[in-house]
Amino acid sequence: MAKNFNLKLILRLLGILLLLESVFILSSALVSVIYGDDDWTCFAISSLVCVIFGVSGVLAGKNAPQEIGKREGTIIVSFIWIVFSLFGLLPFWLSGTIPNYTDAFFETMSGFTTTGASVLNDIESLSHGMLYWRSLTQWIGGLGIIVISLAILPLFGISGNQLFAAESTGPTKDRIHPKISETAKRLFIIYVGLTVAEIVLLRIAGMEWFDAICHSYTTIATGGFSTKQASIAYFNSPLIEYIIMGFMILSGINFSLFYFLGKGNFKKLRENEELKYYLMVIAGFAIIISLSLIDYSKITTFSEIEKAFRDGLFQVSSIITTTGFATVDYMFWKPLTWIILLMIMIVGASAGSTGGGIKMIRIILVFKHCYYEFKRLIHPNAVVPVKYNQHIVSLNIMSRVLAFVVTYIILILFGALILSLSGMGFMESLSGFISSISCVGPGLGELGPAGNYANIPTFSKWFLSLFMLVGRLELFTVLLLFTPVFWKK
Amino acid sequence: MAKNFNLKLILRLLGILLLLESVFILSSALVSVIYGDDDWTCFAISSLVCVIFGVSGVLAGKNAPQEIGKREGTIIVSFIWIVFSLFGLLPFWLSGTIPNYTDAFFETMSGFTTTGASVLNDIESLSHGMLYWRSLTQWIGGLGIIVISLAILPLFGISGNQLFAAESTGPTKDRIHPKISETAKRLFIIYVGLTVAEIVLLRIAGMEWFDAICHSYTTIATGGFSTKQASIAYFNSPLIEYIIMGFMILSGINFSLFYFLGKGNFKKLRENEELKYYLMVIAGFAIIISLSLIDYSKITTFSEIEKAFRDGLFQVSSIITTTGFATVDYMFWKPLTWIILLMIMIVGASAGSTGGGIKMIRIILVFKHCYYEFKRLIHPNAVVPVKYNQHIVSLNIMSRVLAFVVTYIILILFGALILSLSGMGFMESLSGFISSISCVGPGLGELGPAGNYANIPTFSKWFLSLFMLVGRLELFTVLLLFTPVFWKK
Repeated sequence: MAKNFNLKLILRLLGILLLLESVFILSSALVSVIYGDDDWTCFAISSLVCVIFGVSGVLAGKNAPQEIGKREGTIIVSFIWIVFSLFGLLPFWLSGTIPNYTDAFFETMSGFTTTGASVLNDIESLSHGMLYWRSLTQWIGGLGIIVISLAILPLFGISGNQLFAAESTGPTKDRIHPKISETAKRLFIIYVGLTVAEIVLLRIAGMEWFDAICHSYTTIATGGFSTKQASIAYFNSPLIEYIIMGFMILSGINFSLFYFLGKGNFKKLRENEELKYYLMVIAGFAIIISLSLIDYSKITTFSEIEKAFRDGLFQVSSIITTTGFATVDYMFWKPLTWIILLMIMIVGASAGSTGGGIKMIRIILVFKHCYYEFKRLIHPNAVVPVKYNQHIVSLNIMSRVLAFVVTYIILILFGALILSLSGMGFMESLSGFISSISCVGPGLGELGPAGNYANIPTFSKWFLSLFMLVGRLELFTVLLLFTPVFWKK
Repeated sequence: MAKNFNLKLILRLLGILLLLESVFILSSALVSVIYGDDDWTCFAISSLVCVIFGVSGVLAGKNAPQEIGKREGTIIVSFIWIVFSLFGLLPFWLSGTIPNYTDAFFETMSGFTTTGASVLNDIESLSHGMLYWRSLTQWIGGLGIIVISLAILPLFGISGNQLFAAESTGPTKDRIHPKISETAKRLFIIYVGLTVAEIVLLRIAGMEWFDAICHSYTTIATGGFSTKQASIAYFNSPLIEYIIMGFMILSGINFSLFYFLGKGNFKKLRENEELKYYLMVIAGFAIIISLSLIDYSKITTFSEIEKAFRDGLFQVSSIITTTGFATVDYMFWKPLTWIILLMIMIVGASAGSTGGGIKMIRIILVFKHCYYEFKRLIHPNAVVPVKYNQHIVSLNIMSRVLAFVVTYIILILFGALILSLSGMGFMESLSGFISSISCVGPGLGELGPAGNYANIPTFSKWFLSLFMLVGRLELFTVLLLFTPVFWKK
């Protein structure tokens, strides 16, 4: 079996990436030192452990053949999140910030997958270094997913993303494209650019540098970790809320559109159906929720209306982009809100963004397919195929998209079932699973904005950690590893 | 526009069917007379109204051309349920049994669609005639759906049912087949045979003739109306529960299989995948629920174990066949149960049975499709197509099945959203909509076995009545009427 795989190359690449993680951890040590915390040693030790294993991996993979196929790609892409989490939890665990190993893994996986589900009850008690590292895991995860979904996965044909960029359609290749590094570089610049812009704006709006940096990290990654227990509500500043709203919505857009924007190609933006529907869905649901927040039994002042619209828009943006920041506890809102939030958790943001969920493009295609089947019932012979961004969508791609959406729904039902088997409540099982597979963070009931994942059973924590990853990597990438057919020659 | 449709024939057929309804209503008058109730006059008047409108319809449709196309078929099949409900509610309404018009319509539509959702708070207070008519609406509805789905809809190509009977595959025709009456006759014999068998067995098990007849009507139709407020729990008899369980499960099987069984064609049964998975799913979930009902903290007697398994199997059979009878209030069971019940409400029974839901066959095909797409990720060139009952399933059929399942899910999400907009709770909105579109009856929370639909908003009652019908007629039949393309020449 080993002969099938280029195991050496896998070890080498994982080793290199682990060395990269050691640098990130070390940067947190620096933050720790700056703020005079004594837990910098925990970061130093964790970083050293990464270096040791990283170097071992690189050495073990010396002289590895450069051939990398679909299987190696799948394995590396899946395992890197697990490896990063296993080593990334060390600072939390060693310092006693999160003394329980399961909890530490859950929190770190929740970070790297940009989910934002937390087991922490008193976030403000964390040291600056720990808060920084916690935010940084999300920023790394967000960057990782952009690069993987826009530059790496399409090459293996295990992503529906070929669709949105006409450039990358065509037969998928079994080798990494030489242009991968160029694509990645451009994405990196956009990613860093957005982050810096948000930091500056948040600072201007009155946030401390530290909080501005941490929140920008977790906004652009659509992660949702905050340095405050009360999340964004802590700052009690409409301006800050609007800035974060704006960047959440931006982060839910396909990053390649920023690239086209940068090149002055506005046509690409105007013609992009995913962008159009993404914005329409946000606006539509924000209006419905906002209207439901207004108290019609009395005369409403402008500031109350503004607050209702701000809260509604913030929550919809936060959930559909799968960020998970909170400004209010929506568990006090009407049940109508909860259903909308569950729906948009499932829908998610755009493909090629840092957001999770099924992704708007697939939802659009599925709706179009259903309508197409409708028309076909009446006019079986006069059939116009489904089009997206003016291109005909082949039945091949449609068939895969439908399989993706249906698999997503099936996983939700069985996932909720398994969570409830472990003893969780009805709302918690359903919303917790949806929130995790869509990389959102908060759920409903005890998992709502005021609650957290601390008290769910240990089994459920591991189970949800796995499905954060499954969701993050668009289902098939991870699920493939569980099929016998993947491991057969 | 009128020229497009054979309006005369539609009026004539609806008129004839209305005359048939007048006979059914008159039979309830007879029951009323037998039991010495004075509400027989309400039945007589209702029956007379049916006769007047029925004769008017027949006269208006005199000399109608015999041509009947896809559109006429769709209109007749959809409208007959509405017409039957509008006239069928008269006895309830005139007698003051259900004084509110909306409630009376809801109860009657719930009857004819074999849903079994009720607005009644004190069922035992109804007269024998009313109880009989209430049960009879379900029996008529069950018979109607069998004939429509197995004999009529396939001819219009608006059903996925072609799949299971190789005989009826092939290009769909735009005219009613001459053999339709033969098919319908055989189905009628099976339907009546099952009903009589259950009546006799229930009588032997100790039920009164009246209750035995009413419960058999609503079992074979997978309707779920009972003559008792406490449903089957009232009888407190394991034997009765097992008999009803058996007939619920039988009624969830494709009725054409009974026909093959009658002809001694056992091979058809053995090779039928839908039957196999249907029974496996019932057994699997019944075992999970039963195990969750046992109290492991103490030594359990055999009778406690028997009770747990009986309750688990009864509830799973009742819900997956979309009957909705109750022997216990599952709202006191673990949340795990609720998730399972919601899942199997969505799944439903077999195609060509009296049960509702997505139907097992579509679920099987969808699972196979997802697995097929999985394999295709790894071996894009070595693809074995999806097979069902040893036949290759064309991409055309698969595409329609996927559209059906996805439309079902989309409807559930939006349906729950609209119910919650009307002010219903989270669990009630979600479970109420699923229960109605799948023609089950009970839901969760206040709509659980101990509750009913009396207190939901008026809007929600009309909305759910509509979607009982949408679900009953396999979505597309009714939804087609709402598309502009249907009405265009």
